[in-house]
Amino acid sequence: MAGVAVLGATGMVGQRLVAMLRDHPLFELKALCASDRSAGRTYAEAAPWRLEGEDADWVADWRVRECRPEALPDDVDIVLSALPTNEAKAMEPVFAEAGLVVVSNAGAYRQDPRVPLIIPEINPDHLVMTATQPWAGALITNPNCCAVPLAMALAPLHAAFGVEAACVSTWQAVSGAGYPGESAWDMVGNVHPHPGDEEDKLGVEPQKILGAPGAPAAFVTSARCVRVNTADGHLVSAQLHLRGNPSPEQVLEALRDFTPRGPALPSSPKPLLYLSDRRDRPAPRFDAGRGGGMTVTIGRVERCAVMGVKLYALAHNTVRGAAGAALANAELWTLQSR
Amino acid sequence: MAGVAVLGATGMVGQRLVAMLRDHPLFELKALCASDRSAGRTYAEAAPWRLEGEDADWVADWRVRECRPEALPDDVDIVLSALPTNEAKAMEPVFAEAGLVVVSNAGAYRQDPRVPLIIPEINPDHLVMTATQPWAGALITNPNCCAVPLAMALAPLHAAFGVEAACVSTWQAVSGAGYPGESAWDMVGNVHPHPGDEEDKLGVEPQKILGAPGAPAAFVTSARCVRVNTADGHLVSAQLHLRGNPSPEQVLEALRDFTPRGPALPSSPKPLLYLSDRRDRPAPRFDAGRGGGMTVTIGRVERCAVMGVKLYALAHNTVRGAAGAALANAELWTLQSR
Amino acid sequence: MAGVAVLGATGMVGQRLVAMLRDHPLFELKALCASDRSAGRTYAEAAPWRLEGEDADWVADWRVRECRPEALPDDVDIVLSALPTNEAKAMEPVFAEAGLVVVSNAGAYRQDPRVPLIIPEINPDHLVMTATQPWAGALITNPNCCAVPLAMALAPLHAAFGVEAACVSTWQAVSGAGYPGESAWDMVGNVHPHPGDEEDKLGVEPQKILGAPGAPAAFVTSARCVRVNTADGHLVSAQLHLRGNPSPEQVLEALRDFTPRGPALPSSPKPLLYLSDRRDRPAPRFDAGRGGGMTVTIGRVERCAVMGVKLYALAHNTVRGAAGAALANAELWTLQSR
Amino acid sequence: MAGVAVLGATGMVGQRLVAMLRDHPLFELKALCASDRSAGRTYAEAAPWRLEGEDADWVADWRVRECRPEALPDDVDIVLSALPTNEAKAMEPVFAEAGLVVVSNAGAYRQDPRVPLIIPEINPDHLVMTATQPWAGALITNPNCCAVPLAMALAPLHAAFGVEAACVSTWQAVSGAGYPGESAWDMVGNVHPHPGDEEDKLGVEPQKILGAPGAPAAFVTSARCVRVNTADGHLVSAQLHLRGNPSPEQVLEALRDFTPRGPALPSSPKPLLYLSDRRDRPAPRFDAGRGGGMTVTIGRVERCAVMGVKLYALAHNTVRGAAGAALANAELWTLQSR
Repeated sequence: MAGVAVLGATGMVGQRLVAMLRDHPLFELKALCASDRSAGRTYAEAAPWRLEGEDADWVADWRVRECRPEALPDDVDIVLSALPTNEAKAMEPVFAEAGLVVVSNAGAYRQDPRVPLIIPEINPDHLVMTATQPWAGALITNPNCCAVPLAMALAPLHAAFGVEAACVSTWQAVSGAGYPGESAWDMVGNVHPHPGDEEDKLGVEPQKILGAPGAPAAFVTSARCVRVNTADGHLVSAQLHLRGNPSPEQVLEALRDFTPRGPALPSSPKPLLYLSDRRDRPAPRFDAGRGGGMTVTIGRVERCAVMGVKLYALAHNTVRGAAGAALANAELWTLQSR
Repeated sequence: MAGVAVLGATGMVGQRLVAMLRDHPLFELKALCASDRSAGRTYAEAAPWRLEGEDADWVADWRVRECRPEALPDDVDIVLSALPTNEAKAMEPVFAEAGLVVVSNAGAYRQDPRVPLIIPEINPDHLVMTATQPWAGALITNPNCCAVPLAMALAPLHAAFGVEAACVSTWQAVSGAGYPGESAWDMVGNVHPHPGDEEDKLGVEPQKILGAPGAPAAFVTSARCVRVNTADGHLVSAQLHLRGNPSPEQVLEALRDFTPRGPALPSSPKPLLYLSDRRDRPAPRFDAGRGGGMTVTIGRVERCAVMGVKLYALAHNTVRGAAGAALANAELWTLQSR
Repeated sequence: MAGVAVLGATGMVGQRLVAMLRDHPLFELKALCASDRSAGRTYAEAAPWRLEGEDADWVADWRVRECRPEALPDDVDIVLSALPTNEAKAMEPVFAEAGLVVVSNAGAYRQDPRVPLIIPEINPDHLVMTATQPWAGALITNPNCCAVPLAMALAPLHAAFGVEAACVSTWQAVSGAGYPGESAWDMVGNVHPHPGDEEDKLGVEPQKILGAPGAPAAFVTSARCVRVNTADGHLVSAQLHLRGNPSPEQVLEALRDFTPRGPALPSSPKPLLYLSDRRDRPAPRFDAGRGGGMTVTIGRVERCAVMGVKLYALAHNTVRGAAGAALANAELWTLQSR
Repeated sequence: MAGVAVLGATGMVGQRLVAMLRDHPLFELKALCASDRSAGRTYAEAAPWRLEGEDADWVADWRVRECRPEALPDDVDIVLSALPTNEAKAMEPVFAEAGLVVVSNAGAYRQDPRVPLIIPEINPDHLVMTATQPWAGALITNPNCCAVPLAMALAPLHAAFGVEAACVSTWQAVSGAGYPGESAWDMVGNVHPHPGDEEDKLGVEPQKILGAPGAPAAFVTSARCVRVNTADGHLVSAQLHLRGNPSPEQVLEALRDFTPRGPALPSSPKPLLYLSDRRDRPAPRFDAGRGGGMTVTIGRVERCAVMGVKLYALAHNTVRGAAGAALANAELWTLQSR
């Protein structure tokens, strides 16, 4: 069992990590770290439990630690980072330099040429990039919560045909904004075009994942990202120009035939991609929990008069798109480096 | 004052028509018609008021009539049809044959080569198509509730540059499904990919509107239509390939410079197109009511890496996209034929 | 293993029953029955799966049967009824007369003096009423979905102090209306006072449960029932006049000390009552799933200036309040009659 | 025309005040004041418009001022305060001492024995309390947003019968928490028991309003306050013990016969109380806008087995319950002091 700590443990993704680490077959949670505001308080005080179902009573009395390597107990090998971007930018290299393996969900280093951006069932080979990292430890990242379902849907198609271009739209859940995140006033009976840089991320992250280390894939994507009044589950539409202009049937076959890469991981579900044949699916509330939140549901693979083919993909944004993404990357590291 | 009747008066669009006909400067409401199930009952019994704000007390005691020309009083000149597709298909020609001007919101005859599909500030000249119609009266239609904001945003761009192709996505309100329409179970904390033929309509209706009578415009569109948990207001994203690949600034200028065509209409708002410069707009709950629900709000006109340029457009789907669309067409007819 | 069939298998509660019967330790699902409209079709065609998470693929191809005893296979001993009231009224005695044990969630016979109304951890002794029933089989009912959390919160207090009166309010989930149930138009950004007879049920069902067979408890309740825009989980407020006017601390102690009655049941959770000490709980989305949906969460036990003491109780309305209620009653029957 | 300034102009209630002051027959808006964070910026920068419909373009370029009397222009006579409690506590007496009439929506001084708590159509005579106030100006308050519909529904009944006790529940809109207020994560598909002191306010404010100056009415109330996923409109249930135990019909008659007190006010609607006879009303989205948001809708006046009689009341919480409440109080002051 490797000892792990969670950085940013009091946030939305931090709580998902805590929940997923209970009874994990490879990892034992040793420490919860968060901002100075929270450090020193019990976890229950600093972060009243706000996920569905049973509370995390087992860690309720733990004392939250500061986000510094020295604050960690000795038996921590891996830190799972759910830090906000700025804190991640400042502290993740410090943890890596201290010899820890930093598995990060933050956006700070995703485009750093030294750092792999990994979905472990898609591009586990990118882990090799850590070999030449300047730190005593290592730093691994996972994609943005919308880039995850997009890249996972594109992976089989890029392998089978080659992706040329994608017009993308999203129907994103409020949990993607963290906690407290969006104001209820803005969301009730409403949708909210994403004012930040999410659209830009969808233009570079799938390319880095689906390319070779250091050589991003060359296709172009342009996205419209809109927050909707759902709790969990990002629905993504992709209108795709694929090389050779395959038919929807050929695309479906490629999706069906896709074999996840890399080692079998505890957090990796079967199936990885669930193909729904229902015309009104995928839908966030119904499909986000599939495979414990780690399965991506794909549906409505159809002819697109403009681009060639179109489809929907949906992933639980704080599990497959965040906490589970980091956790699976940590599993990949642990199993690969054995 | 022209006498008007509402067909399908008990539905969602029927109630909007009733609300908009109160104190109308050109029209006097004379009769409410609906299905046999409702006929004979008072309007309040047949259709308990379900719009926001004051009830339509002035028509509460009216007796609902059958949907037949003979059931109308003599002083009705125009019928505004909010009938379901099948009923519209069967009955609208009967009313037209009886000498009435049928101004329809239904989908049944929108693609009929004899019938104009009109947004009165965009293609009022299509009204000429009624001159050769086979009926004693006339039949005019307005577009689907998503096609309205799309066509209205494209109109200035088609005139200024020429539209080549559009990738479209929608975030559609539940009122678009009528009443009772969507199940609350399917919508609460959820979004619902539209299982019907809405996407197909967006591939033909803008073309008919923006072309010449009998000669649809040649551009291609491909849409993804998703119902979201909003009451009113369809948000539409368009990623556009325009001839000459104009910049976002040039596109904004074309939108700003657009002059509505045709005569001034009582229901036509100022401005027709409202250009928002806020990054998180348009948003349905905040923007749908602009201009009494008749203004289309456009925002986020930006470079699109795939298609050239992209933007959002939003319209109140049961006002600008349905009841108000029909009413404005009736106003156009009345003012043109004077 | 007892063989069971589900009546009304295509509805909201029917699907919950199917989900809960998978891998059940006492029961084997043998047949799915529904209306004539559904009979003969596969279950997947008749009732596209609409619960969260994995589909019920194991029964997708089953042929739906008619709702008649003769339509059942021979090895069915128990029928779990999720029929609408009128169908239940007509058919449940027919199944009971045919020798089957009918465990019903319907409201039709809850107030029948021959029929027990049971929450198995509260009044399992009422099962004795079946001994004098006129049918070859038996008929057992469970309470209305709001009466369940109310009666479960009152049970320890009625035992410890005696309930005199209760002012009750509800914040009820849309699933309580079945499928399609409430119109999304009525619920989006809205709440909906319940127009039916739900309030009346809360005035008689807790009394029957907390009294002796044939002798309902004498306290009075008056309720206001309001549907809110939540998926699952009925929140109930009770302002209580208890004999002797105990303090909130004494009430909490009685709740804490309550021992569920009857035999241990596979579907009965630990704890049966979860006492939350958070000021903003219970909340439906967060607490409804506790104990697999079978735990009732109670919170905010406080002094009431009018009645003496007040508290909130919350239960998953289609699990603890419907499907799970019936299933647990079937378990009680099976274990008691051994 | 009296010159007015808005304190706390950048918040939810501040924006409603700005909207209601446009083209007001008695008042001219002269200044917008807010926190130091906002002071010096334009209003559009400091408070991007977030109400439905047209933006407040007429004040977009105004410079926000500091919340000090010296920051006001000379021609301001009345300040309308939408300040948070602590700021109100500190600054409202300072403005009053500076000779201004402070008409406050804040909770800070509602229970101060020197300060009247006024609903102008209910207890305009309480204005007399300002005569003995220690300040050069005056300080007037309006009730909490839930206390408003409660007190307005009780007023006719207290006059006709005498209120003895009330068990109260609320279904409160998110706008009541201000902006950003509630987290969307907490509200989507959820309800949120109010963790603050709202319930306590409902136990003292109606009493102060319905009593004589300095002598609150003696009845007791106990409330359960729950936030629901609605934008605007607080629904309140009251189960009432009235002296003499009148029938629902008698209660309805008292409500129907109620004559608003005091002078006719520009903001006071006709009718003040709208009595709905629909079983599923009042409902926030449909009824909150009645009378421009200033009418209280009452429904379901029925026998209560516990308390005697019960009813629902609904008011737009940021209009009748906040901005409009303050504005109408300012109108009362202006018209009374003439």
